Amino acid sequence: MTVCWIDGAPADALPVKDRGLAYGDGLFETLLVKAGQPLLFERHLQRLALGGRRLALNLDLALIERECRTFAVQMSEGVMKLIVTRGDGVRGYAPAVDAQPRRILQSSPLPLYPQENAEQGVRLFPCKTRLAEQPLLAGLKHLNRLEQVIARSEWSDAEHAEGLMRDTSGRVVEGVYSNLFMVKGGVLLTPDLTRCGVAGVMRGELLTLAEQANMPARALDLHVSDLQKADEVFVCNSIYGIWPVRACEQLNWPVGPVTRKLQNLVRGLLDI
Amino acid sequence: MTVCWIDGAPADALPVKDRGLAYGDGLFETLLVKAGQPLLFERHLQRLALGGRRLALNLDLALIERECRTFAVQMSEGVMKLIVTRGDGVRGYAPAVDAQPRRILQSSPLPLYPQENAEQGVRLFPCKTRLAEQPLLAGLKHLNRLEQVIARSEWSDAEHAEGLMRDTSGRVVEGVYSNLFMVKGGVLLTPDLTRCGVAGVMRGELLTLAEQANMPARALDLHVSDLQKADEVFVCNSIYGIWPVRACEQLNWPVGPVTRKLQNLVRGLLDI
Repeated sequence: MTVCWIDGAPADALPVKDRGLAYGDGLFETLLVKAGQPLLFERHLQRLALGGRRLALNLDLALIERECRTFAVQMSEGVMKLIVTRGDGVRGYAPAVDAQPRRILQSSPLPLYPQENAEQGVRLFPCKTRLAEQPLLAGLKHLNRLEQVIARSEWSDAEHAEGLMRDTSGRVVEGVYSNLFMVKGGVLLTPDLTRCGVAGVMRGELLTLAEQANMPARALDLHVSDLQKADEVFVCNSIYGIWPVRACEQLNWPVGPVTRKLQNLVRGLLDI
Repeated sequence: MTVCWIDGAPADALPVKDRGLAYGDGLFETLLVKAGQPLLFERHLQRLALGGRRLALNLDLALIERECRTFAVQMSEGVMKLIVTRGDGVRGYAPAVDAQPRRILQSSPLPLYPQENAEQGVRLFPCKTRLAEQPLLAGLKHLNRLEQVIARSEWSDAEHAEGLMRDTSGRVVEGVYSNLFMVKGGVLLTPDLTRCGVAGVMRGELLTLAEQANMPARALDLHVSDLQKADEVFVCNSIYGIWPVRACEQLNWPVGPVTRKLQNLVRGLLDI
């Protein structure tokens, strides 16, 4: 059953004058909840705080944290979606200086992804939709997501579990709802996200885990030619963890040892 | 007094699961209403229809037109804002094939812009915020408007009535809530909007008026160097009509004859 709170109280309707609707003026986080706990919660809160600073949202992070923890206890298990908007507005783009952000929490059941996604790996759909380059918004999980909506509507078959997105300059950036990694010569590589893309919580966690395991890792500009030469490729997010990528169009990759090693580490975090 | 309808009935709140909130998955139009009539209504509907096709929204345009006309009669005078979203969604970017778009109509009073904006002209604030280049969304008045929110928060003084926005490659594109024109050697020039920007209803109307008046007009890539050499500069939208631009930073322009001629034509359209 889906539960929803607005500003800490059960509700399922939002004032029409909310700027989240008018302009996508807000942020969101999608968190995995197990045993009444939001997982990787500190990282989600850190990204939210960064977004709040970049968009000059007056967020009460302590209140948000408390509310999320209480909500997670009540839902016990599933996916918790947190939306924060700039709150109500009047006509026009200028945000009111005293705008009161609105907090929206929604629960949904754990998604039922096929077990073979994590075991045998997935095939990526090569999206034609490109990501525009906007450094001011890059990395944030904001509410302006039309590019993802358009990209995700490019395929509907079950054969492709995710899509591969490039930016308008042709660089490989991410999946539609995942981050991308590749392994080359034992080095973990992931696209730089300073021009576009969402800096995923699982991506951040994997870079930290790699550092702790003395595994060299770098975020840098990557192209399809790098994918062609990669030894291993995988996608990740904070809900499903890691899926090896076995194919994208005519390219194929084996499920390799680095991917399996990181999958095992991540299972320890998510399968509590 | 503000009035709001959702799907044709008075309401002021919408379901939290609306994809307009979740992803900015929708479009809007802002129309001037005088004597119970939405002005330049055909052009607004045409842009909405184009956006609906580009986003694959299943819009009932005849119903939207009827509803807007009825709403305009009731409000009599003011600004009518129409939002259409993809409607309710479940978790995930993929739009349901049978998604039922939601229609939201809101009225607000006529804005009180200083009379001298139209008479003596305005000063533009030079926005640092650049527009990302995304041909898939260019021209549309969609709900992903964080760039405008950020740009509009760059200034709060009353000295600047509008901002000048460039794209990430440096081309001059538009105002934050207006389109931009310049006049050079008797030719009307306006930025090409195939990479970014909103193809304003008043911009379209002015290009048609120019054609009817045998005034040469072109949409093309323009740079700050073109602004420097311009004989006249003005901004426009479908609410206030035309404001001459007299300055932007150290640049200055006179209020010229082409601007005055077009202002007179537009007054005939808007001051009914």
